[in-house]
Amino acid sequence: MTTEKPALGWIGTGVMGHSMAGHLLAAGYPLTLTTRTRSKAEALLERGAQWADSPREVAEQSQIVFAIVGYPADVREVFVDPQNGAIAGIAPGGVLVDMTTSEPSLAVEIHRQAIAHGADALDAPVSGGDSGAASGNLSIMIGGNDAAVKTVMPCFEIMGKTIVHQGGPGAGQHTKMVNQTLIATGMIGVCEALVYAHRAGLDLPTVLRSVGSGAAGSWSLSNLAPRMIEGDFEPGFYVEHFVKDMGIALGEARRMNLCLPGLALAEQLYQSVIAKGGGRAGTQALVNTVAEMSGMDWD
Amino acid sequence: MTTEKPALGWIGTGVMGHSMAGHLLAAGYPLTLTTRTRSKAEALLERGAQWADSPREVAEQSQIVFAIVGYPADVREVFVDPQNGAIAGIAPGGVLVDMTTSEPSLAVEIHRQAIAHGADALDAPVSGGDSGAASGNLSIMIGGNDAAVKTVMPCFEIMGKTIVHQGGPGAGQHTKMVNQTLIATGMIGVCEALVYAHRAGLDLPTVLRSVGSGAAGSWSLSNLAPRMIEGDFEPGFYVEHFVKDMGIALGEARRMNLCLPGLALAEQLYQSVIAKGGGRAGTQALVNTVAEMSGMDWD
Amino acid sequence: MTTEKPALGWIGTGVMGHSMAGHLLAAGYPLTLTTRTRSKAEALLERGAQWADSPREVAEQSQIVFAIVGYPADVREVFVDPQNGAIAGIAPGGVLVDMTTSEPSLAVEIHRQAIAHGADALDAPVSGGDSGAASGNLSIMIGGNDAAVKTVMPCFEIMGKTIVHQGGPGAGQHTKMVNQTLIATGMIGVCEALVYAHRAGLDLPTVLRSVGSGAAGSWSLSNLAPRMIEGDFEPGFYVEHFVKDMGIALGEARRMNLCLPGLALAEQLYQSVIAKGGGRAGTQALVNTVAEMSGMDWD
Amino acid sequence: MTTEKPALGWIGTGVMGHSMAGHLLAAGYPLTLTTRTRSKAEALLERGAQWADSPREVAEQSQIVFAIVGYPADVREVFVDPQNGAIAGIAPGGVLVDMTTSEPSLAVEIHRQAIAHGADALDAPVSGGDSGAASGNLSIMIGGNDAAVKTVMPCFEIMGKTIVHQGGPGAGQHTKMVNQTLIATGMIGVCEALVYAHRAGLDLPTVLRSVGSGAAGSWSLSNLAPRMIEGDFEPGFYVEHFVKDMGIALGEARRMNLCLPGLALAEQLYQSVIAKGGGRAGTQALVNTVAEMSGMDWD
Repeated sequence: MTTEKPALGWIGTGVMGHSMAGHLLAAGYPLTLTTRTRSKAEALLERGAQWADSPREVAEQSQIVFAIVGYPADVREVFVDPQNGAIAGIAPGGVLVDMTTSEPSLAVEIHRQAIAHGADALDAPVSGGDSGAASGNLSIMIGGNDAAVKTVMPCFEIMGKTIVHQGGPGAGQHTKMVNQTLIATGMIGVCEALVYAHRAGLDLPTVLRSVGSGAAGSWSLSNLAPRMIEGDFEPGFYVEHFVKDMGIALGEARRMNLCLPGLALAEQLYQSVIAKGGGRAGTQALVNTVAEMSGMDWD
Repeated sequence: MTTEKPALGWIGTGVMGHSMAGHLLAAGYPLTLTTRTRSKAEALLERGAQWADSPREVAEQSQIVFAIVGYPADVREVFVDPQNGAIAGIAPGGVLVDMTTSEPSLAVEIHRQAIAHGADALDAPVSGGDSGAASGNLSIMIGGNDAAVKTVMPCFEIMGKTIVHQGGPGAGQHTKMVNQTLIATGMIGVCEALVYAHRAGLDLPTVLRSVGSGAAGSWSLSNLAPRMIEGDFEPGFYVEHFVKDMGIALGEARRMNLCLPGLALAEQLYQSVIAKGGGRAGTQALVNTVAEMSGMDWD
Repeated sequence: MTTEKPALGWIGTGVMGHSMAGHLLAAGYPLTLTTRTRSKAEALLERGAQWADSPREVAEQSQIVFAIVGYPADVREVFVDPQNGAIAGIAPGGVLVDMTTSEPSLAVEIHRQAIAHGADALDAPVSGGDSGAASGNLSIMIGGNDAAVKTVMPCFEIMGKTIVHQGGPGAGQHTKMVNQTLIATGMIGVCEALVYAHRAGLDLPTVLRSVGSGAAGSWSLSNLAPRMIEGDFEPGFYVEHFVKDMGIALGEARRMNLCLPGLALAEQLYQSVIAKGGGRAGTQALVNTVAEMSGMDWD
Repeated sequence: MTTEKPALGWIGTGVMGHSMAGHLLAAGYPLTLTTRTRSKAEALLERGAQWADSPREVAEQSQIVFAIVGYPADVREVFVDPQNGAIAGIAPGGVLVDMTTSEPSLAVEIHRQAIAHGADALDAPVSGGDSGAASGNLSIMIGGNDAAVKTVMPCFEIMGKTIVHQGGPGAGQHTKMVNQTLIATGMIGVCEALVYAHRAGLDLPTVLRSVGSGAAGSWSLSNLAPRMIEGDFEPGFYVEHFVKDMGIALGEARRMNLCLPGLALAEQLYQSVIAKGGGRAGTQALVNTVAEMSGMDWD
């Protein structure tokens, strides 16, 4: 460990956060962390991370504080809470980095409060899922000021591969909403296409050989359609988290007076997945709902 | 030209048909052709193709007859018409191949009539567009009997790269409908995502750097979003042809009692493109309609 | 029976046609009829109607010929068939009246052919269902020329209560499509509202007391919501007939380049009803499908 | 004024609140009021109402406190604010009545806090609009306990005609959401039907004569379609308020895991109305958006 490396803080050691924090530790950064359930952080603590009892305490020990938690309410709690939040603990010159997929407007608020404390803040949600986090191949979408981006960039480069500074505060979250909008509506197409193909009597893997690589091709088709065909609904990304994201996107769209009927339809169909008990399935479970609407039992 | 090559017939020399027939000529096949407007076939005639005055006459000269025309009504006319249609002219043992995107049920009917004449028929629609036709890189989706597929395969291999026998009569058309369903719904997502990004103040090419290669990625996003951003609405594939295809898919879906709300929404939005004068624009013109719904003038 | 009354013809004695023809017989008109299944006409024959073996023979005996059959293909057969159709049999000066809900463009074609035979034709679809037909309280929406409307008006006045000449040939059918578009989209609202109310733990009849008579009120809410609540899915109007009508409306909309996302959604949801076996249920069965999408077993 | 009448409080004197409070004054109730802009209350003050500077002060003077304000955030402020809210001022035994259209979950929270203060609370949103408020003909949908309903009933009977106790706390708000869901989806149908009729060349008032009174009939068709036809977009109910209500309904639906694609589509289309500058138009302005989607300039 060299003395030049800044002291880092980490809040949230779920599946993704655990991998990401581990990469920073492995790169030799000193790391103080907290998370809701201490046992989930044990492996990191054994590798040299320091425990702190609250986000505030994490921030008091750190020059850069990362968080990746669950819902916007969690983000608000770990950053904004006047007693225990990270903003209350960060020293002037520090940078707070929220990597949770959360509300752009909340990112703006955190940024404003951080600036008021003499610190700075970035929103930097990611895509790439558990496997991207594990392999350090995430796409990181960043909103905030240039100086803060420059400060944090060496850390981002350890965690991700596609690292793009998208604009001012909130721009990272907005970019993530663009990402989820693309996925959501495309998923309707993948599911309807498979349901059509099945009802038409086609052999689904054979169909994918024809349609998978041309103008109809997509990541979802290549990666999730095979799982749908095999009836594998193990979560790469939980339905309930995807619904959270779509809710954020639709809320922002409402605030910006956008008319997005495709996204709205996707969210309603995913509500159906949850209503039928699939909230903890992977997003590919949408095919069950779409199939049932056509009187088909997909499983 | 070797004597082993079967005599081919070709009906329809639009942009795609012209390229495809040209490849067969170049490969040394004898070719008799007809098309609605003779001038569009001149270049092929100069290269050695023989002219015929009707699909029937084409069929009378040919062992394998290909057609790629416009609408299902055109397909019906060139194959089924009792006076001038290709079925009336094909000799026993011949094979009729419809490469138009058309109705699965019509493919089944043509196949049945061809069999009744002692001949056979395949439906073999393609994807890949003008450029795929020009470069011989089409995806060809085939429905029909094994024997006929085997007979025609050497020709398919000259025209396409991804050549898959999908099943019995109509299976090629059904597979093409799957292809179009994927594209249609995915296009809503691409347009809504760009409109969201623009309203949120993001720089669109920068956004594509973040979202283009991960779970949100698709052919449409990589190939059409940049044209949308540049305001380039030149047709790779006409809106009005796409609407024809979606109409076929929805008609088949109705016949099979499928509930496909995403495809239905896509078709209505594309009707809007036509209503606003964009029928001869490329499919990427959907972004104009989606933007206008949010009070945005995209151009 | 007075000698001034014109000889009438009637084609199609389903539930509605039987009632309507019966009213004309009761009013003293001489009536020649045909229908697909003669046994369904027995009661009318016993009351003095004359049997004919084909629509053409009906027309040969009649000055005014009414038809109310099933699908546009049936309409085409009974009017346009060159051998046995009514147009082939109608004498100059006669009037053909199609009361089936059918395609506006087919109405225009029948009108044109009738005129070419020196006769005339009206399209005059109805709403009001079995009970309206039985009680002579139908709403009749008429397309065609003034003179023909005047000729047939005494008969219309026996069958209906709200009788409006909407315009030239096809205008009656278009008006019926307007009627069905209103019902279709409104039905989504009724079903979603009940599903919401049930999930929210409200008592549904009590809810109807609050919302039934104000700005949320509609015929469907007053008449069909109570049946939904009681689980009574007996057909007042068959789902499969409603889907036929929506298919016509969407086809006309496509021809006129209209973007109607609400109607398209309604049709897809009703396809779901059919897919689940509800084609011969009443239109109120939509609530089952909407409830299932929310993971609720309505029955 | 008799001594038996309880002292009333009133918060919010917008168009509806002004009329409603005026009826109570006219019936002889002593009334203390507050509102954001005092000038809007002048006429009521001249008629004998007493001014108070905050909701808390209103509550301190009153046995029953009514509020009808704008958004859920306003409801929260006037009731829940620990400094100036009505809950802080209400005496044991008092009843707080929120007549704003607001969130069911907020109604539950207000009720819980009121009970904790020894008071009680009802949610009692209304439908019927300005004219219903002016004429005392509102539909009042009530959630809360029997005892509180009984206490407030004499006042409700002065303000409304259809007064229904729907269930426990929140049930009034849920019933209002049912009401708005019915209206929202039905409005799509009215607009699409008119756009279809216009494009088909029909005369719109004549069409309404055929379809207005049968199975397609609704309050919206009878009352708003004529205004759409005349191009009268004066607000009976603001688009932006309707969008607020749909947002509440969709939020509750999300919380209850409901799939409501029709309501979601309606909300998106109404977002389009706002995006095009129609937020302060009446809800009938939706026809402009629906017409524009079909390339039609309705105005």
